[in-house]
Amino acid sequence: MEVPIHAVVLAGGRGERFWPRSRAARPKQLQSLTGGRTMIEETLARVSPLVPENRQWIITSEDLVAAIRALLGDVPRIIGEPAGRNTAPAIALAASEIMKQDASAVMIVLPSDHHIADVVAFRRTLERAVELALKNYLVTIGLVPQSPETGYGYIERGRDLGANCFSVERFREKPDRKTAEDFVNSGRFLWNGGIFVWKAGTIMEKIAAYLPDLYRATREWQERGGLEAGAEALRHYFLPLQKISIDYGVMEPASRERPPVGSGVAVVRGDFGWDDLGSWEAAGRYYPADQAGNRVSGTALALEAADNIVVCDQGLVALLGVRDLVVVRSGNAVLVCHRDRAQEVRRLVEELRRGNMEEYL
Amino acid sequence: MEVPIHAVVLAGGRGERFWPRSRAARPKQLQSLTGGRTMIEETLARVSPLVPENRQWIITSEDLVAAIRALLGDVPRIIGEPAGRNTAPAIALAASEIMKQDASAVMIVLPSDHHIADVVAFRRTLERAVELALKNYLVTIGLVPQSPETGYGYIERGRDLGANCFSVERFREKPDRKTAEDFVNSGRFLWNGGIFVWKAGTIMEKIAAYLPDLYRATREWQERGGLEAGAEALRHYFLPLQKISIDYGVMEPASRERPPVGSGVAVVRGDFGWDDLGSWEAAGRYYPADQAGNRVSGTALALEAADNIVVCDQGLVALLGVRDLVVVRSGNAVLVCHRDRAQEVRRLVEELRRGNMEEYL
Repeated sequence: MEVPIHAVVLAGGRGERFWPRSRAARPKQLQSLTGGRTMIEETLARVSPLVPENRQWIITSEDLVAAIRALLGDVPRIIGEPAGRNTAPAIALAASEIMKQDASAVMIVLPSDHHIADVVAFRRTLERAVELALKNYLVTIGLVPQSPETGYGYIERGRDLGANCFSVERFREKPDRKTAEDFVNSGRFLWNGGIFVWKAGTIMEKIAAYLPDLYRATREWQERGGLEAGAEALRHYFLPLQKISIDYGVMEPASRERPPVGSGVAVVRGDFGWDDLGSWEAAGRYYPADQAGNRVSGTALALEAADNIVVCDQGLVALLGVRDLVVVRSGNAVLVCHRDRAQEVRRLVEELRRGNMEEYL
Repeated sequence: MEVPIHAVVLAGGRGERFWPRSRAARPKQLQSLTGGRTMIEETLARVSPLVPENRQWIITSEDLVAAIRALLGDVPRIIGEPAGRNTAPAIALAASEIMKQDASAVMIVLPSDHHIADVVAFRRTLERAVELALKNYLVTIGLVPQSPETGYGYIERGRDLGANCFSVERFREKPDRKTAEDFVNSGRFLWNGGIFVWKAGTIMEKIAAYLPDLYRATREWQERGGLEAGAEALRHYFLPLQKISIDYGVMEPASRERPPVGSGVAVVRGDFGWDDLGSWEAAGRYYPADQAGNRVSGTALALEAADNIVVCDQGLVALLGVRDLVVVRSGNAVLVCHRDRAQEVRRLVEELRRGNMEEYL
């Protein structure tokens, strides 16, 4: 018997570090940042050989449903959350709907806004994860770290389960620089990329164990019919929920079970050119460089200017005698930012919000 | 008998250091750079109490005539040069036309794109210059230098003629830094602001003496009817002329006459907040500053950014963690330039021209 596989794409992010191209009504996942299709289309295209369209789910915020449907059509199930409650509630919502459809289904949970260079290797990793999920593991994908990043969570691998699969010794939140270096040098740590594979039934059992309020709300919602009960029922059960991530709410406590109840938490080591495209600095790596190291998307003219990242959606950006800047012209706004500060672009968005400058959000 | 006074505004410049707001079809003089009316309107408004509208002349390039007429209406005489030949030919053209109208007229020659803070003092200076012009002097206005600028010409004053008027000892082209400092410290040097006052007949006599080819072409053109002979005649006589400035072609050699033929060359010392607005760096001084020293025209948001100059004609410019930049968003182009390089913005315009990027010129 073939087990049905579902894909759940988490697409509720705001992508504020990619302002001004990423806007409230058309955030990062609805943009192409490296050229070609939008990130959400790329995400679905990557898993489509494993997951038929009628088993693809998009969990996003209410206000993005229309834009996503316009982009993707009606085939994926598109669910609009009435408010952002982080990943655990979104996953519970999706898992309960999938269980109704396929009691034994495996679900792959994916962020909608990451870049993956080697799609074949990525799918091979997912297939391995599905095999583990069928043995009742909660599976996370661990990326071979490329540098001692302090912005990522890390996964310490434990027992070797063969074929790049390991039990998880522990999850580690964003480390300081020194710790991150130790992690990378040890060879035992992997980046947590937020990609999960499990049976819908397995994750619901763990949610029942570790997040009982969420479990209860989900069960009551399903007793009223779940999605079929309409938007008002969803708001009723969803809005009172606490914000909590699946990592913090389930994966970390589950990884601390000794001995594990069921099969425990496993990680599949993946090496497929993963990039979470966290900022313009990261996106810039995908733009062609001129001789002075300026990386440009769109039309730019650079005179005695070096090592800048330029994104120009309309017209021209001209640089003279500047270096290490991020310059983005998109819609009604222009961003000029030092490259070292690219992570902080969302602070500008906060300022705009505070100043009621809605037309630029 | 009241002597008729004419004003000749030289408005053929391209203002390329003010790209991207200043464009080929709407250069600096047709823009407002410090707020309010366009620079050419400001120029005319300043002299209007001395010169009635029907004695105001605009000398510009052919392709700007329509735009200037749209702005100013039909009252000033607007003459389009078929090509830029620097100031001496433009002045000969205007002087010969003025002589036809008023044989004894005094003409005030003014750049169209300078800023003057104290208009009353400016007009007082011009009135003094007119008095000298009536005594057959070639008069230039010398500005009290505010700093040892190396980009300006300097005028060394000679004999005191009373009431802030002096004979001219000599003209000095753009000096090096050390020389400029000596000039300023000596108290004997003034900036040459390109503002001249003379009888039309006096300057034509000097053109006859020092620029005989120009004189001959002007005379032959007038024998055919001058402006009334139409654009073809103007092209015929004007296009073969050499490019030469009135400073180099007439004022300098005339100031070397010992003893002067006629009354010689005089300078009126003026102190009226003159600014040639040579670059965005200069224009920025007129924009309000925030606490971090950012000077902004238009809408900007600055976060941990200091001492920048921002001009935003549409939408928003947002700065994060940058300093000492000039950022200009105007029309289809964005300029990002280090403040120290503001003088070199015209090099970008040259690059655009070389690259046939006409839509940005």
